[in-house]
Amino acid sequence: MNSSSPSQTIRLYHLALSPFCRKVRLVLAEKRLEVELVEDRYWEPGSEIMRRNPAGKLPVLRMDGRLMAESQAICEYLDEAYPTPALMPPSAIERYEVRRLCTWFDDKFNAEVTRPIMIERVWKKVMKAGYPDSRTVKAGLRAIKDHMDYLSGLLESRRWLAGNTMSLADFTAAAHFSCLDYISDVDWERSTTLQEWYATVKSRPAFRSLLADQVPGLPPAPHYAELDF
Amino acid sequence: MNSSSPSQTIRLYHLALSPFCRKVRLVLAEKRLEVELVEDRYWEPGSEIMRRNPAGKLPVLRMDGRLMAESQAICEYLDEAYPTPALMPPSAIERYEVRRLCTWFDDKFNAEVTRPIMIERVWKKVMKAGYPDSRTVKAGLRAIKDHMDYLSGLLESRRWLAGNTMSLADFTAAAHFSCLDYISDVDWERSTTLQEWYATVKSRPAFRSLLADQVPGLPPAPHYAELDF
Repeated sequence: MNSSSPSQTIRLYHLALSPFCRKVRLVLAEKRLEVELVEDRYWEPGSEIMRRNPAGKLPVLRMDGRLMAESQAICEYLDEAYPTPALMPPSAIERYEVRRLCTWFDDKFNAEVTRPIMIERVWKKVMKAGYPDSRTVKAGLRAIKDHMDYLSGLLESRRWLAGNTMSLADFTAAAHFSCLDYISDVDWERSTTLQEWYATVKSRPAFRSLLADQVPGLPPAPHYAELDF
Repeated sequence: MNSSSPSQTIRLYHLALSPFCRKVRLVLAEKRLEVELVEDRYWEPGSEIMRRNPAGKLPVLRMDGRLMAESQAICEYLDEAYPTPALMPPSAIERYEVRRLCTWFDDKFNAEVTRPIMIERVWKKVMKAGYPDSRTVKAGLRAIKDHMDYLSGLLESRRWLAGNTMSLADFTAAAHFSCLDYISDVDWERSTTLQEWYATVKSRPAFRSLLADQVPGLPPAPHYAELDF
């Protein structure tokens, strides 16, 4: 461990509307760790992303003189190194369920919903890479319905997504939903249960920085930052 | 927790040449947990995969009267519930590195190497779904070179992939390499360091069940099961 500069500012190389970056921001804020956000438009000349992360992905967290990558590995590290408030439950089987749901969102939900919709409706515009493909958007909007029904089902027998305590699973899910909510692509009327869950997560102080995001040329949906939407 | 049948046989619904299933098999064997392997050819009629895992993916582990999905979540659970021998190192920062590398393989290496090569050279044949696309195979074989160089670099300063103790990162990596090695698609001459690492992992008793795999109509490469290849 390079501990030559332990008091160095924590810095997150990120993109505002990336669910993986948002997940790390939520955990940092929940742990009351102050962070300097540096946007890395990695597709533009001059980006040093490959030097910071050989996997070429965001987010990258600079902390304790070290560069850290992979949002789930970072979040588990932050929860272990800064255990209060805890974002992982105490028992092994409860932690299993949190991790299963984190992968559900970062893998399946991302592949079927977040990534296709965000590429077509946000990133093509931001990167000036053509027009959205409406078939891809429609497929994503169809897929989100099944996901919302599955999550509503979970919330019928649980207070939070992975059990009766708030966990990293809720933050992971909220990170994805908040990106889609920025562009108004979540039909909250489909599930009051899920809408109430999101309103609760969104009202946490840790969410404030996300709700203040403004992407140039792409203003958020009017209800995006409202706490009683 | 449904503990009505705690002594029920542990069962893994799997596919022989899936790296995610192999990862769980390796961890179960390392923990000396006996498991009944049930092949689930989920593309054939009669598969109940969606009932067992709403994400529709393998492996699914039936254990303690419960169905568990997502290989990383399962492996972390097994390591927490059966801590000897440990597959996660003691400090938070070491565990971070293990998890970063697990994601490296299950996400990046899988997307660039394992999945494209296995789809073209194995699954299309097994599923009778057409002929391999040689461009895709070639792209995978190009990508594996960069990965091997990166891993060799890591092993120059470490005894094992994530540090100086064997961990879940080594099993995750070996699970992917072993699938490719079955069809002889790893050019071990590229890196003696990596070859020696793989020979060491492969010689563990936990690896025996994998080395005995025989996929009908697709015999393994001659060196696949040899310990001193």
